[in-house]
Amino acid sequence: MIRRCPRLLLAALAVAALPSLASAQEKSAVQIIAPTDKTITPSGTWSIGARAGDFVFIGGMRGTDRVSGQMVEGDEARVRRMFDNMLAAAEAAGATKADAVRLTVFVTDVAKYRPLVNKVQKDIWGDGPYPPRTVLQVPALDQGDIAEIDGTFYAPVKK
Amino acid sequence: MIRRCPRLLLAALAVAALPSLASAQEKSAVQIIAPTDKTITPSGTWSIGARAGDFVFIGGMRGTDRVSGQMVEGDEARVRRMFDNMLAAAEAAGATKADAVRLTVFVTDVAKYRPLVNKVQKDIWGDGPYPPRTVLQVPALDQGDIAEIDGTFYAPVKK
Amino acid sequence: MIRRCPRLLLAALAVAALPSLASAQEKSAVQIIAPTDKTITPSGTWSIGARAGDFVFIGGMRGTDRVSGQMVEGDEARVRRMFDNMLAAAEAAGATKADAVRLTVFVTDVAKYRPLVNKVQKDIWGDGPYPPRTVLQVPALDQGDIAEIDGTFYAPVKK
Repeated sequence: MIRRCPRLLLAALAVAALPSLASAQEKSAVQIIAPTDKTITPSGTWSIGARAGDFVFIGGMRGTDRVSGQMVEGDEARVRRMFDNMLAAAEAAGATKADAVRLTVFVTDVAKYRPLVNKVQKDIWGDGPYPPRTVLQVPALDQGDIAEIDGTFYAPVKK
Repeated sequence: MIRRCPRLLLAALAVAALPSLASAQEKSAVQIIAPTDKTITPSGTWSIGARAGDFVFIGGMRGTDRVSGQMVEGDEARVRRMFDNMLAAAEAAGATKADAVRLTVFVTDVAKYRPLVNKVQKDIWGDGPYPPRTVLQVPALDQGDIAEIDGTFYAPVKK
Repeated sequence: MIRRCPRLLLAALAVAALPSLASAQEKSAVQIIAPTDKTITPSGTWSIGARAGDFVFIGGMRGTDRVSGQMVEGDEARVRRMFDNMLAAAEAAGATKADAVRLTVFVTDVAKYRPLVNKVQKDIWGDGPYPPRTVLQVPALDQGDIAEIDGTFYAPVKK
């Protein structure tokens, strides 16, 4: 689901010259992705994603349960949920796993978790093709988590 | 301010077949963002940002003073300046805070600086909407700094 | 070289309603970049890059030899090869060094390797302009390597 900012409405607001309505936020061509019943819901100063023209940018996703907000138990299940949370957010903006153009995976132990990421990606993308990807080790993640992912998608509105 | 590379000029250069003028650099559709009196000025082999079609990519920004080049004193002031430096570079290419589609914040202590990043973002973006974001811990940054940010913006030339 | 997915073909497949042919993967507008005789060949669940409209996203590249798959000997040679591997993948999708809009370089020692990255970039991009860039320290990379790079390019199909 996307908060739409129709150009006509924006033009009308501009003509009306009402600063309180036509704020800088509202005038942007960026469409912030609102949470759905399949995505997580952000608790802080960030959104799950944004559509910008034909592209969809998803914020950092971890393997947390969308209802409880808790990290899922089990390393593989956690990594799987991380991908599922990312794909649910992308889906909310009309993008699928086949539309991924860049994945950046941050893990706290590259030797330990990279094989797990590979396994989960094989489960999801099957025999491919696979998106371009980078796996990086970081010293720590929020809440002591083991993995976080940044995803970028390309899904033209009319294809 | 953007160094423009008009297609007509490029076509003329191509016809003239002058390698020294029509270099590979000049023929790109990428518009490198030149520093302004509000942005920092890069000292090395990088630019503050680039416009590519409707998108604006800003290079890694830290909380340094644009005149002295020194890191600003105080953690919160430093983080605030980091955001301001990023937004000044985006502004030089016609993009505002409402046009941000991805922010990646790298900090040397996620437990310590993530709350500070949240606070500063609330100051800047108010009640939102907020851009998609990822906060990551890294073991070290250039000059022993505490935070650095990568920002991507979407600001169609004619909107 | 790009695996093309012509819209007409996709439309035909959709009409034919053959799930085995018109899979989710094939229906994407994303063009995965196939390896060439100048690029490395991925061994796992990732691709060297993807073209998405006018943009080209290259997966994480390191200084490995495209034939042996081994890391190149010597720090500077390794960093140089890292850039060359990235540019070869970009070239396979029609993008050149002048089309780079964002470079993110991850190194295991920022004090030690940042000067090396600067030197190699000066060799490649000459007097500039240089792309926006971020250099970050990470605690470890795959195979104990010293540097890895993410590159994004803008190369409109018709320019």
